[in-house]
Amino acid sequence: MNTRERIAITDVSPRDGLQNQTVAVSTADKLALIRHLAAAGVRSIEATSFVSPKAVPQMADAADVIASARGQPDVRISALVPNLRGLERALEAGVTEVAVVVSATETMNLRNINLSLEQAIRTGAETLRGARRSGLATRAYVAVAVECPFEGPTPIERVVSIAAGMLEAGAGEVVVADTIGAAAPAQIDRLLAALAPAVPIDSTAIHLHDTRGLACANAWAALQRGVRRFDASVGGIGGCPFAPGAAGNLATEDLVLMAEQSGFDTGIDYAALAEVVDFAQAILGQSLGGRSMPWYRRRRSGRR
Amino acid sequence: MNTRERIAITDVSPRDGLQNQTVAVSTADKLALIRHLAAAGVRSIEATSFVSPKAVPQMADAADVIASARGQPDVRISALVPNLRGLERALEAGVTEVAVVVSATETMNLRNINLSLEQAIRTGAETLRGARRSGLATRAYVAVAVECPFEGPTPIERVVSIAAGMLEAGAGEVVVADTIGAAAPAQIDRLLAALAPAVPIDSTAIHLHDTRGLACANAWAALQRGVRRFDASVGGIGGCPFAPGAAGNLATEDLVLMAEQSGFDTGIDYAALAEVVDFAQAILGQSLGGRSMPWYRRRRSGRR
Repeated sequence: MNTRERIAITDVSPRDGLQNQTVAVSTADKLALIRHLAAAGVRSIEATSFVSPKAVPQMADAADVIASARGQPDVRISALVPNLRGLERALEAGVTEVAVVVSATETMNLRNINLSLEQAIRTGAETLRGARRSGLATRAYVAVAVECPFEGPTPIERVVSIAAGMLEAGAGEVVVADTIGAAAPAQIDRLLAALAPAVPIDSTAIHLHDTRGLACANAWAALQRGVRRFDASVGGIGGCPFAPGAAGNLATEDLVLMAEQSGFDTGIDYAALAEVVDFAQAILGQSLGGRSMPWYRRRRSGRR
Repeated sequence: MNTRERIAITDVSPRDGLQNQTVAVSTADKLALIRHLAAAGVRSIEATSFVSPKAVPQMADAADVIASARGQPDVRISALVPNLRGLERALEAGVTEVAVVVSATETMNLRNINLSLEQAIRTGAETLRGARRSGLATRAYVAVAVECPFEGPTPIERVVSIAAGMLEAGAGEVVVADTIGAAAPAQIDRLLAALAPAVPIDSTAIHLHDTRGLACANAWAALQRGVRRFDASVGGIGGCPFAPGAAGNLATEDLVLMAEQSGFDTGIDYAALAEVVDFAQAILGQSLGGRSMPWYRRRRSGRR
């Protein structure tokens, strides 16, 4: 009998991890990555993004990925959709869960999607409403929720207001994202405390990057605040084109190690996940792995 | 006016960091390391160890290091002493603060210092009493307090009992040490909760290694339990002879970043500390740096 408290992890490596890669990853390899993640016990995977193939050629095969990946028993397969046009394409591909993204600052939205903050919020909300009308499950990211690379520290009250708006527009899960990995645990704690009255903790997820090496500490702060939904990326793939492999997403294996060893149940097998890291290394042709992987690799090879 | 809560960090790099190095570090370089740390704002430095020069040749210059390093205004300079004989040598060198080490398991003590657990506890206590009679400030490490490489998980009640004994024998500070870096935050939390009735939180310090990449998360858990005294090692130097540079001590710069950005006052300047990392790299001829250093180096070089 399992009495440990459950943590739900969405592995975002096929989307957030692969969208910045310079090497071309085949659709077959993406599907294999998704299959391996599911086999390791991952029960929620952000598989692709229905953005413009011109803007993000890495995601041009979104429809094929969804068509082949969906329908795995007990695995949520989601796709990012930037707007109603993306939602339409996602629906045609047979998606059952979508995520929208609203950055919390004017400049980030302008640079990223060429919309003002107000337009981005409106677009996010209408996309969520469209998704709900079509019976889809939904997630809404509030990006640069801690700090914006262009505007500096993000006002907490704005994050709360955007999150509340997304919830009202039909988001099943609001994902607070430290997109550039700038947070320290006290900031995560403060943000989540401010968010609690607006978004039920069961509908709150957190998305962390490990730029400053504080992602696990931030995840622990979130766990202490009652958050039980996390994004992570196997091998820490993704996030920082300025430093490949060095400053990506919170690595799924690090989160699994910390959570399982702290008595939580992630449903994910660390050793199997480490094999997925090896697979991802092979398809990307680069050295990957979370902060815990050097230790695990020594141990696995019998050198402790 | 500074109203931030203070954290006291002891940098142990000259001792715990250098004792495992295969390259010879000159006394002059050790003293320069200590001087640079003090200049960066570090107010407590474990400078050397009066162990047998035969067992640990890296520390053979302990007397010279202490004679030159002591007497810096506002900087605590301490030395590790294994027993009364080491204490005698430390006193001759003019030390004002010493640390003793008791491992919490039978096997670790046998392998490390060829004493049984009971003998090790007795030796630690008599050394502490001798130090107090000589008017020295004292710290007592309880090593392998979470897990022992030979015996597995360490019983919490034994850690508490050893810690209480060291306090009674005159330890001014009891340092709970996750010597092999095996802990996850829930374990640190549990251990500190059990320790609280036996050792006042003001006299409790924690010493972490970053083997599994969880040192910052563990430090955050300790901060949440009220611990305000930490060991750390600049550049993360030290700790794991099996994996040079990969799994050393909690890096001072990582702790400083996390604590300062979370509103605590460490008195230490991150940028100056990063220069010390560069210096340590130069004298050790190897790549060093905590988890935050890749980010900081990019930022310092203007590449964000």
